[in-house]
Amino acid sequence: MDEVKVIKIGGAVIEEEDKLNAFLKDFHSLSGKKILIHGGGRTATLIAEQMGVTSKWHEGRRITDDQLLEIVIMTYGGLVNKRIVTKLQSLNTNAIGITGSDGNLMTSVIREKKPVDYGWVGDPENVNTAFLQMLLQNDLVPVIAPLTHDGNGLLLNTNADTMTFAISTYLTRLYLVKTVLCFELEGVLEDTKSPSTLIDELDENKFQLLKQNGIVDGGMIPKLENAFKMVKQGVSSVRILHYNKIGLLDTDNLKSTIIR
Amino acid sequence: MDEVKVIKIGGAVIEEEDKLNAFLKDFHSLSGKKILIHGGGRTATLIAEQMGVTSKWHEGRRITDDQLLEIVIMTYGGLVNKRIVTKLQSLNTNAIGITGSDGNLMTSVIREKKPVDYGWVGDPENVNTAFLQMLLQNDLVPVIAPLTHDGNGLLLNTNADTMTFAISTYLTRLYLVKTVLCFELEGVLEDTKSPSTLIDELDENKFQLLKQNGIVDGGMIPKLENAFKMVKQGVSSVRILHYNKIGLLDTDNLKSTIIR
Repeated sequence: MDEVKVIKIGGAVIEEEDKLNAFLKDFHSLSGKKILIHGGGRTATLIAEQMGVTSKWHEGRRITDDQLLEIVIMTYGGLVNKRIVTKLQSLNTNAIGITGSDGNLMTSVIREKKPVDYGWVGDPENVNTAFLQMLLQNDLVPVIAPLTHDGNGLLLNTNADTMTFAISTYLTRLYLVKTVLCFELEGVLEDTKSPSTLIDELDENKFQLLKQNGIVDGGMIPKLENAFKMVKQGVSSVRILHYNKIGLLDTDNLKSTIIR
Repeated sequence: MDEVKVIKIGGAVIEEEDKLNAFLKDFHSLSGKKILIHGGGRTATLIAEQMGVTSKWHEGRRITDDQLLEIVIMTYGGLVNKRIVTKLQSLNTNAIGITGSDGNLMTSVIREKKPVDYGWVGDPENVNTAFLQMLLQNDLVPVIAPLTHDGNGLLLNTNADTMTFAISTYLTRLYLVKTVLCFELEGVLEDTKSPSTLIDELDENKFQLLKQNGIVDGGMIPKLENAFKMVKQGVSSVRILHYNKIGLLDTDNLKSTIIR
């Protein structure tokens, strides 16, 4: 089975040009088939501010109302996605920027309005693996924006981690999938202030212990739970690493946390 | 040689949902290989207004400064392109939205700053026909936003008519190309107020006469000049028609102006 790397980036690396350029140079250097999935929430916040749109939130999650939906379509599908694709093209990586609508890549169902109405948010339903395979076989590098469609003409805001999960697990039918989640930390650390406390490999027992001790908390918990689920559903490995380490992915010098 | 239809839309049909839905339903019904190229200038103007950005113009042409470049990338590559693709997907047309960067579809050179500096505007340099062919062979329908890239990491604003010209003429190497320019009129009319004065077929002599008599003027002149050039460069025919007539393209009931 052929290998494919599914790499997810979000946060500061997308917003800061120097960081993004360095990351994309490293990403470009990676051999083999690869897919990049990106977020863009901070850019959407900036554009919303410029448009005088106030974001509504519920427990740290933004609500995608009509105005915000337009903004995330413009920002994720346009500004961020095309910026990444154009930079990759300048490095001679033949990138193609797509959303869940393009080539019918990913359909979703609109999230239930209860108990909380998050607005125009879609949870993945199906992944068109044949389409991704066709792109990969033609030496294209898919760059995927976190938007999906409901099959009835609606584009929906979708969490980039959720898309990474769906794409990674669906692709196990066709490829040996290595998923990589890029962060602003070296990986899972016993002490977030000390990179030397990096946990090289995490299993579920150790994860439960870290949770109990409060060492892993907040947004990291669902991300790691997703990682364990991915591995259970056939993903070969999930790595968590600093985005500036992506160039070392195929080397022995890589510092990261692996789940497999 | 296989046939491909290259269809260009712009103006009101993009902005008004009912008109766009009707157009896309007709476009969906067309048989064979097809490509849709869209504008989006009015949407960009609206978004610019919402963002408090004042457009600068020179002789009726907008200048693409830094802020406007971001806006056209968001609007053309994001909002308009993905709206069209998502609607086509709901009709079971397997559309894929792309800009000049995606798959290295179209490189351009930044327009000379003299005598007028139009800003971040690119004039087409090359079309990646192999990429378009690959999409078409896989039964995908390319939906193309009017943006190109310079190969050095810059995305540039590019006129949708110019993109239609470049794509149509390059594709003549691989296909019998039928280009269709959609307007808000039935075609070229002797009297724009009277549809019965439609000119079914236009040749260069007649065109020169119409120009001299002032029957054809303004923005129509460069469009028709482009059409004659396309045909000289191997495009099988260029049709000019009302966007609500596109569904009749393969029938005998079509009213339009043809150049061949």
